[in-house]
Amino acid sequence: MPTIVVDVMPKAELLDPQGKATTGALHRLGHGKFQNVRIGKRFEFTVDGEVTDAVLAEVRKVADETLSNAVIEDVVSITVDGAPVEVAA
Amino acid sequence: MPTIVVDVMPKAELLDPQGKATTGALHRLGHGKFQNVRIGKRFEFTVDGEVTDAVLAEVRKVADETLSNAVIEDVVSITVDGAPVEVAA
Repeated sequence: MPTIVVDVMPKAELLDPQGKATTGALHRLGHGKFQNVRIGKRFEFTVDGEVTDAVLAEVRKVADETLSNAVIEDVVSITVDGAPVEVAA
Repeated sequence: MPTIVVDVMPKAELLDPQGKATTGALHRLGHGKFQNVRIGKRFEFTVDGEVTDAVLAEVRKVADETLSNAVIEDVVSITVDGAPVEVAA
């Protein structure tokens, strides 16, 4: 069964407090060269049957409307079995 | 500045309640063809200077020890500016 991966990140213009805390922790642990940590989500799921254009359209719709909150997050990538798929603007 | 992406997923043999809930929600919303949703984390950060082998080793160490919990999670991929880097076994 094909595996689809959807990556969702907090919008660049918004503060990411979780990422900021992680940046601070890395610095305290001596990893000062790592900057601007931002933390998003990675969804992996399988699809029954072949990935047709209609299925891809449904994946984009689900990514935009259900898996991400368009007010604060962007869908940054969608891949099917490792191959990138164009993300709707 | 080079951007590094670290992807962390719950181990395959563990239940992912958040993913299970999302699978159920998708089915209730009429997207029954999507199965086995699992939800992990995606870390994006930048590095000061060039990405040398020493920096990569430090990224792997940070990914394994700080960004993920090895008891319940796996580091599934590390990329530098989009190019995959071998993940330590």
